[in-house]
Amino acid sequence: MKTLNLDLGERSYPIFIGENLLGRSELIAPYVAGKKVLVVTNETVAPLYLQQTLKGLQDFETDYCVLPDGERFKTLDTVDTIFSQLLTGHYDRRSTLVALGGGVIGDITGFAAACYQRGVPFIQIPTTLLAQVDSSVGGKTGVNHELGKNMIGAFHQPRCVIADTNTLKTLDGRQLSAGIAEVIKYGLIRDTAFLSWLDDHIDDILNNKAEALAYAIEASCRHKAEVVASDETEQGNRALLNLGHTFGHAIETGMGYGSWLHGEAVGIGMLMAADLSMRMGWLNKTDVDHVDRLLDKAQLPTRAPSELSYERFLELMQVDKKVLDGKLRLVLLRSLGKAVVTDEFDPQSLRETIEAHRAVSNHTGLV
Amino acid sequence: MKTLNLDLGERSYPIFIGENLLGRSELIAPYVAGKKVLVVTNETVAPLYLQQTLKGLQDFETDYCVLPDGERFKTLDTVDTIFSQLLTGHYDRRSTLVALGGGVIGDITGFAAACYQRGVPFIQIPTTLLAQVDSSVGGKTGVNHELGKNMIGAFHQPRCVIADTNTLKTLDGRQLSAGIAEVIKYGLIRDTAFLSWLDDHIDDILNNKAEALAYAIEASCRHKAEVVASDETEQGNRALLNLGHTFGHAIETGMGYGSWLHGEAVGIGMLMAADLSMRMGWLNKTDVDHVDRLLDKAQLPTRAPSELSYERFLELMQVDKKVLDGKLRLVLLRSLGKAVVTDEFDPQSLRETIEAHRAVSNHTGLV
Repeated sequence: MKTLNLDLGERSYPIFIGENLLGRSELIAPYVAGKKVLVVTNETVAPLYLQQTLKGLQDFETDYCVLPDGERFKTLDTVDTIFSQLLTGHYDRRSTLVALGGGVIGDITGFAAACYQRGVPFIQIPTTLLAQVDSSVGGKTGVNHELGKNMIGAFHQPRCVIADTNTLKTLDGRQLSAGIAEVIKYGLIRDTAFLSWLDDHIDDILNNKAEALAYAIEASCRHKAEVVASDETEQGNRALLNLGHTFGHAIETGMGYGSWLHGEAVGIGMLMAADLSMRMGWLNKTDVDHVDRLLDKAQLPTRAPSELSYERFLELMQVDKKVLDGKLRLVLLRSLGKAVVTDEFDPQSLRETIEAHRAVSNHTGLV
Repeated sequence: MKTLNLDLGERSYPIFIGENLLGRSELIAPYVAGKKVLVVTNETVAPLYLQQTLKGLQDFETDYCVLPDGERFKTLDTVDTIFSQLLTGHYDRRSTLVALGGGVIGDITGFAAACYQRGVPFIQIPTTLLAQVDSSVGGKTGVNHELGKNMIGAFHQPRCVIADTNTLKTLDGRQLSAGIAEVIKYGLIRDTAFLSWLDDHIDDILNNKAEALAYAIEASCRHKAEVVASDETEQGNRALLNLGHTFGHAIETGMGYGSWLHGEAVGIGMLMAADLSMRMGWLNKTDVDHVDRLLDKAQLPTRAPSELSYERFLELMQVDKKVLDGKLRLVLLRSLGKAVVTDEFDPQSLRETIEAHRAVSNHTGLV
């Protein structure tokens, strides 16, 4: 087991990464406040990992909440059902929530914890690659609004993150690919050596090779922890972690939440960001082909949905938390390994990027 | 005009108290972030003060959101309508919300600001006595759940508070009385001299005498600011500001939100807390009569609703943010002017207190 630390002063917390961590009470119990614990999970994860998780919480009064599976349930209404269960069960301010599942479960549960009685502690147990390498770390919580992705939320840090790589063995290939998109992201924004490693090891990750997975998760969490520690509430550099996300969120919202997985949308979003960076003269064709090749190796789509017109794309992209005073800002690449936030792109180039990628969709289909 | 300062480090802010403050751009403009401002108000307040408020915001792109009036609209659903308007209007992270109204509007708007894009700035313009002396100051925001009052929320401090005492001239008597309950609270928990002053001046407040109102508001805000500065997120002493609130919230939830005004419920709640304190030997009969007399002078109910049985009262009181590890804690009075949080009361005494006060309700009726 590896332990990383996210350094945020009194809100610091450990990230445990390794095999067979679920059910180990010595890892989770020290981070539980009070006596009562509510585990929030979904219909897919509950049959696989709920009992094991509860085993590690035997010293506490536990109960669980099983939500339907999918991004389209990441809503205020779902959070409200968690509030109802908490109130009915007399959970007080010293209770602890545990998020057991992927990014959707983590975001919903974290937001419920942020708002219940103005804030109770919570713990992240991510069970997808995407959640283990990205969304469970850093305290971004929230839900979607039909008009925009992740538009409602809070910064609320977990007490600890327990990433049990065993849970990835039950992950389907599409989910695994989606997680790799966020792994590639760290290479693109800040680590060219990691990009080279990925060139050689994406196959191993897809084939669930323990060593490759462990390294990819650890490297990703280290990058995430460094960036978040330097800018917890995204006043500056943390925005770089949003490479591909403005394009990606537009696809997720425009196509209906859950139709594209978050990682799939971010993957093609990163390719579009690379393409626009090339049109600005920052990357060359070889760089963009490199990104395309990585996505392809990861079995991720490399075309945007043709259903979204250029105009609709642009309209959806305007609903983005990086927009300031009405001006769209994007994370682009100065070079592979170096990202910047900028509003200084040529609108015509942006149009060309969108048009060039929405031509033929090679997305594998709706869920 | 008086200016108080709430000292919270980089989250510090001024509280402006005085006549004719609405519409003065030099007071509000320095606290607006970005270019866009959404004023949130309700159907009662909008016709009276919306135009004047917008006048002070002429340098910005403004719009407004008019909600129905009343505690029963303090829900997640209402907050969601604000999110929809913000998203439709392309409000970005640098936008500012303005809460123009009483405690309900302030709580809803503050919570919307706390969650929209994980937090945008907001400004409080309280137009009721209760909001001016209490709820607009200190950053507690939130909404009710059908199972419990103020159970969903966030700590989110405003950028400034503008308490224009002119707005109280249009306040109906019942609302004015409700506000006085929270004024009396500060005397009971930490200022006996202020209690004596209130003995002599409650009539003046009820009669809208400017000098008495200004003094009551300033003294209250000073107390509130001192307590909040010492304990922003209620880890300790801030809970003392909840005198009467556990009883009061039980009445508000049990009778249906809006049927009793918050201040009315808190008023009788304080009398019940005083009564229980007497049963513990901390206060004498003269002290309790003093509280009763103050409420009576303020034209506040001094009896709890007989509709709520002892059992129901107790059940409702268990849903309280001060409950820890299942144990009910109450703010009680060691003496007039000195409050404590304690779980060491005799359950039988609590029963007697509840039974003694729910006998005959002298509440003036439903809204």
